[in-house]
Amino acid sequence: MASSQPTEVADVAVVGAGLAGLVAARQITKAGRTAVVLEARDRVGGRVLNVDIGAGKVVEMGGHWVGPTQNRVAELATTLGVDTFPTHTEGENLIILGRRRIRYRGEFPPLSRVVKADVGRAQARLGRLAQRVPLEHPWDTPGADRLDSMSFATWLNRNVITPSGRHIIGKHIEGVLAAPASEVSLLGALFAVGSATDLETMVAVRGGAQQDRFVGGSQRLAILLANELDDRVIMDAPVRRVAQSRVGVRVECERFIVGARRVIVALPPVLASRITYDPPLPSQRDGLMQHMPQGSVIKVNVVYDEAFWRAEGLSGQAFNPQLPVAWALDNSPPDGSPGVLVAFFEARSARRFSGEDETLRRRVALECLRSYFGTRAATPQEYFEMDWSAEQWTRGCYFGQMTPGAWTQFGSALRAPCGRIHWAGAETAVRWNGYMDGAVESGERAASEALADLND
Amino acid sequence: MASSQPTEVADVAVVGAGLAGLVAARQITKAGRTAVVLEARDRVGGRVLNVDIGAGKVVEMGGHWVGPTQNRVAELATTLGVDTFPTHTEGENLIILGRRRIRYRGEFPPLSRVVKADVGRAQARLGRLAQRVPLEHPWDTPGADRLDSMSFATWLNRNVITPSGRHIIGKHIEGVLAAPASEVSLLGALFAVGSATDLETMVAVRGGAQQDRFVGGSQRLAILLANELDDRVIMDAPVRRVAQSRVGVRVECERFIVGARRVIVALPPVLASRITYDPPLPSQRDGLMQHMPQGSVIKVNVVYDEAFWRAEGLSGQAFNPQLPVAWALDNSPPDGSPGVLVAFFEARSARRFSGEDETLRRRVALECLRSYFGTRAATPQEYFEMDWSAEQWTRGCYFGQMTPGAWTQFGSALRAPCGRIHWAGAETAVRWNGYMDGAVESGERAASEALADLND
Repeated sequence: MASSQPTEVADVAVVGAGLAGLVAARQITKAGRTAVVLEARDRVGGRVLNVDIGAGKVVEMGGHWVGPTQNRVAELATTLGVDTFPTHTEGENLIILGRRRIRYRGEFPPLSRVVKADVGRAQARLGRLAQRVPLEHPWDTPGADRLDSMSFATWLNRNVITPSGRHIIGKHIEGVLAAPASEVSLLGALFAVGSATDLETMVAVRGGAQQDRFVGGSQRLAILLANELDDRVIMDAPVRRVAQSRVGVRVECERFIVGARRVIVALPPVLASRITYDPPLPSQRDGLMQHMPQGSVIKVNVVYDEAFWRAEGLSGQAFNPQLPVAWALDNSPPDGSPGVLVAFFEARSARRFSGEDETLRRRVALECLRSYFGTRAATPQEYFEMDWSAEQWTRGCYFGQMTPGAWTQFGSALRAPCGRIHWAGAETAVRWNGYMDGAVESGERAASEALADLND
Repeated sequence: MASSQPTEVADVAVVGAGLAGLVAARQITKAGRTAVVLEARDRVGGRVLNVDIGAGKVVEMGGHWVGPTQNRVAELATTLGVDTFPTHTEGENLIILGRRRIRYRGEFPPLSRVVKADVGRAQARLGRLAQRVPLEHPWDTPGADRLDSMSFATWLNRNVITPSGRHIIGKHIEGVLAAPASEVSLLGALFAVGSATDLETMVAVRGGAQQDRFVGGSQRLAILLANELDDRVIMDAPVRRVAQSRVGVRVECERFIVGARRVIVALPPVLASRITYDPPLPSQRDGLMQHMPQGSVIKVNVVYDEAFWRAEGLSGQAFNPQLPVAWALDNSPPDGSPGVLVAFFEARSARRFSGEDETLRRRVALECLRSYFGTRAATPQEYFEMDWSAEQWTRGCYFGQMTPGAWTQFGSALRAPCGRIHWAGAETAVRWNGYMDGAVESGERAASEALADLND
């Protein structure tokens, strides 16, 4: 292979047809340059995936919601003619703490005054600290070494003192990071919060990152982008090798080779690390990729003949930090039919159940849903699940995050091009890092870099 | 490639001709089975490497010393007829703390009473905690979740209170782990200490892991093993894909394919993660490899016409925790000629200087040696360096370690075979994890597993 001639040529080769790669290719094409997108799977979207639940309706198995300040993905959707609709929030939410079963309205559960004060104080502290992080270079945060050498779990243990408070905050963190708080540093957590505007915006449904959904499912964004790019997107083409020379770059798949002037690698860092680079990447970049493992999520969508919980005055949002499936939300189509609940095995729980048989996971998930919504929840019409860590071409969700100590040691390599290689993917975003919005930002930024270099 | 016939066959294919892989292949061969070893480089030894300094003499650029309780590598050396000789320790050691320059004899520098008490207390505490770790399954340590959710840096900050004490212990830790204390958990550090018998044995020269050297250099062990295996070791053969079927396993290199009944992957976890597996590995195993980055070391050997420091009553062992090259030791050949100093850029310092030009590193290293040993140290005959993180087929030294939280989440996947795949390499060792001794243990263990399966 190494000596054969390229079988495709383009100004820019893009590795990965997730949102980041597709957005990059679109921008390059719009600028009058040629792009070719190489996708390992037989579909586009990467971590954004619809599943067909019949009658032309879909639900989201990956990247899901959109909310305030996520301006880039919102603008993309507008451009592509994709509307949004609000996440269903009518009715009462449910929180179960030990034997207490509490129904409430609005974003914040009615905790005891002590717990509320405890959680509120920690949130405020976290918010203040997060504001100090310069999002483009978190390693320059005042006291960065100290903040990066402490696990976020240690900080939580020091700053949240009630057991319920720890349970609630801990699970929220696991919910957004898809990793236990022990696996990121305080600096990493502060960056994540700051990148998502603030903690309230990050975790809220109304007024937050879970506020709206895309009509036709979030993957529609990727599908429409790919349709525009047409046969410039090549499926079943895992990239094995990226070889740079003085005049260009060879991007080698198993069956063919693309010759290009620049390449944009739009993959999670873990997958990017599994490509062979010639010459080998600098140790800083390689070290970065060694220190950015993916989170762990098994996402479940359960379909019922109707959204029966609504008739009982429930919103479908339920939370029990002690269950393997700690979260559920109403995920029915815009017209409310059929009824769909989305639920998550996250972080520790995802790892616990990832190696098990699907029938066990299904039983556990339905048992959890039954505990939230009663016996009808145990007998769905259909059960869909996606274990993102088991997927060869993802290897974890929602995103890769730096391990403790890594932001200060390797952070500066995150977006730094390596010769003709530019780096995209939600993990490289400044704003909404790890989200669809961040993926769009990263694709735009990498395309701009590549275009500027082409014009040199 | 995927459809072509194997061009080599063996009972067991071994990936990697480091000590682990070679020991495994030898054991398989001795049991009357066939093994073939596939090595990406054009040499054997992996992280064990000699450099020729002329006149038939060599020094160690990678794995180096051997000491008490390292029985497996010692036994291997005996079997192969490789003798040891003591690391040079005659004369006074040097420690520089701020503006204080202290010459002393023996293993322990004459610290102030306060610092000595501080360091001693922390060492004792660490030792007691380490004894509680069951080395074969550290995730079962009492309180494992708590120990694994705290960075070792946090523990040090709480348990070592004098600045000098922190400097000294911190640098010792960076010295043995080749990573800042922020990048491993307390549980990880306790395992490392326990695996190396105890802290004293781990860090000492006399009576410890740096006590002796192998005549002819440590790589001689690998070279002699490879000589025994003869043409069963194939060089320039990076393995790209491992495909399992019901009847066997195909191990695919770029130019040929080995068909085998079992495969032993004897690589650092980071490199093992860069092979393509078919079927894909279980998420637990993949997650493990995502959470075991390599440490960072640039090792330097500097050759002088004579060991001039000896004439001045110095041993050649020097330490200044504030310099980029914090350590130096006498590394002259057994007869003391020429004079050689070995020195290290470790952890933060290795990362700081890895991307720089060799001339800068050389200047910095010689400047540090000059500050220890005077002007003669600045004008060597030869300068050798090895940046292990920049090496495509190593990507870091001394070894891969689990990031905070990972031992409890992924530890059980460390040695668990995946179908026909067995895992070796120093990172999988119970005793002397990360050392040459651990590599030997791992090769023996993996070979025993594979042989037992062959006999099923």
